[in-house]
Amino acid sequence: MSKVVRIHEQGPPEVLRTEELDVGEPGISEVRVRIEAIGLNRSEAAFRAGQYPVKPKFPAPMGYEASGVIEAVAADVNDLQPGQRVCVLPTYRLGEYGVYAERAIVPAGSVVPAPANLTPIEAASIWMQYLTALAIIEVTHATVGDYVIVRAASSSVGLAAIQLANWAGATPIAATRRNTKRQALLQHGAAHVIATEESDLVEEVMKITGGRGARIVFDPVGGPYVETLARAMAVDGTLFIYGGLSGQPTMHPHWPAAFKNLSIRGWVASTIWNYPDRFARAKELVLRGLAERKLRPVIARTFTLDEIVEAHRYLESNQQLGKIVVTP
Amino acid sequence: MSKVVRIHEQGPPEVLRTEELDVGEPGISEVRVRIEAIGLNRSEAAFRAGQYPVKPKFPAPMGYEASGVIEAVAADVNDLQPGQRVCVLPTYRLGEYGVYAERAIVPAGSVVPAPANLTPIEAASIWMQYLTALAIIEVTHATVGDYVIVRAASSSVGLAAIQLANWAGATPIAATRRNTKRQALLQHGAAHVIATEESDLVEEVMKITGGRGARIVFDPVGGPYVETLARAMAVDGTLFIYGGLSGQPTMHPHWPAAFKNLSIRGWVASTIWNYPDRFARAKELVLRGLAERKLRPVIARTFTLDEIVEAHRYLESNQQLGKIVVTP
Repeated sequence: MSKVVRIHEQGPPEVLRTEELDVGEPGISEVRVRIEAIGLNRSEAAFRAGQYPVKPKFPAPMGYEASGVIEAVAADVNDLQPGQRVCVLPTYRLGEYGVYAERAIVPAGSVVPAPANLTPIEAASIWMQYLTALAIIEVTHATVGDYVIVRAASSSVGLAAIQLANWAGATPIAATRRNTKRQALLQHGAAHVIATEESDLVEEVMKITGGRGARIVFDPVGGPYVETLARAMAVDGTLFIYGGLSGQPTMHPHWPAAFKNLSIRGWVASTIWNYPDRFARAKELVLRGLAERKLRPVIARTFTLDEIVEAHRYLESNQQLGKIVVTP
Repeated sequence: MSKVVRIHEQGPPEVLRTEELDVGEPGISEVRVRIEAIGLNRSEAAFRAGQYPVKPKFPAPMGYEASGVIEAVAADVNDLQPGQRVCVLPTYRLGEYGVYAERAIVPAGSVVPAPANLTPIEAASIWMQYLTALAIIEVTHATVGDYVIVRAASSSVGLAAIQLANWAGATPIAATRRNTKRQALLQHGAAHVIATEESDLVEEVMKITGGRGARIVFDPVGGPYVETLARAMAVDGTLFIYGGLSGQPTMHPHWPAAFKNLSIRGWVASTIWNYPDRFARAKELVLRGLAERKLRPVIARTFTLDEIVEAHRYLESNQQLGKIVVTP
């Protein structure tokens, strides 16, 4: 028997229920992993709360990013062996499988060997954040001379975007709500920090960029502030909206988009892993970045599996700087 | 003295006031044109009504697309001569100059020789519509196998987009509010016509495209229907919003944009003419299309300058199919 966290209904963090279950043997093209660390993602909180477009079948397993050791593989799985240290990538749909557990069955296709130089906690913290933030390089080719506004900069994906921008020679501008995280963001690679609730972002960005604006904006929040972000952008710029954390509707920024020829793009990391070639190249880049220490996962705080409710509360508190990890 | 139409305040079509004025001699880098035909654009109605981001200085001249004959050129203008038949392109800002007149001073840089094979009425009808619709080729490279949804298909730009899509081997799908213009749109090159108020656009487009959706959408209307358009799109598609005719706010279509990696792009034709190289190439393409009869301006109706108020009413009625042209 193993501890497994599932939800039997959608709602606040308290709907996360820890149960003792027999997770069984892996079916066709599946493996069983003894989980060492679980990386939390905001989409899991949305899924739990009923704010995600995929509706669960109850009871629904939770979580899709983890590290651990393979315990068993199905007969048709040839490229993974018991005893191997692996990462579970969030390439399946929320609720199809789940890694909030001591042991989990997951698709073999979602499992890759863990990078050798990372701790289990770090290994549970890399794939979602770097594959999501990789949009700034993979889609918009961030490079020397570019300014990249990273909104919700202290999130795990935000810090990943800052690291990727620096690696590409671009200049990351961290946008964060208040000045409390300024020093930490500067230490973690932000070239500039703008506290959106305390200063005029457009004016600040225009000062930083010599009046040109930022070519790339990376935003998981959406809502009315997108109009402000658009006004801070350069001609031909791209604004990625990769989440809807504001809970408010996002208006298309009509005039700045029209007159500056802006692209307002949706983005989810699955855009990369749905294409084998893009996925292979992306994995290579991330592993190289980690090996060269251009990319360094930042861990905000760890919780035990018994503290999963508290971990979700913290996930939704926006207090963290980096990734929240849960260990069984 | 010449008849000149100006506005002394913003408001309904009746604010267009016809006056007898001496338009004077061209200043530095300007030319004076005897106007033969004036092409109307929806942005002029928005400017007149106070729904355009550029605020006029009163009294403000009106209009920026025309054909005519050069009467006089400034001393520094070497590439244009009196007697030459020309087009005035809408490359200056609304209200800076105006061509709703018998004679008009315009910047020499906004003037090009008129294509030889066109009537003055046709010559006043080409540049705004083709340079605007050229986005589908110039930005998104519409080609064989692509489906292009053209919203407000019976507008001058809509018909231009249909012609450009056909020229590129793509399949234009005309979206129009009701079925009344179906036959006419099919005759003017639409491969399919969908009456948005009378049928389920997503279902129709999926049927037409074998479930793939349209890679390109070209929309001057905006508003809540953008969500429906986004649901009818293919993965990696681009939705151009090049106007706000609905008068309603446009929501960013969050989930379809995220999961299909859509780009929602602003667009104005000035994006092309602000860059000399792009402008030169675009002019070449349009002239070639006209010469090869791939592009054929469609004239909805002509008015005289004395009927300018009525012409604006008609412009805003959405009854037209093609370009509205006014002759002095």
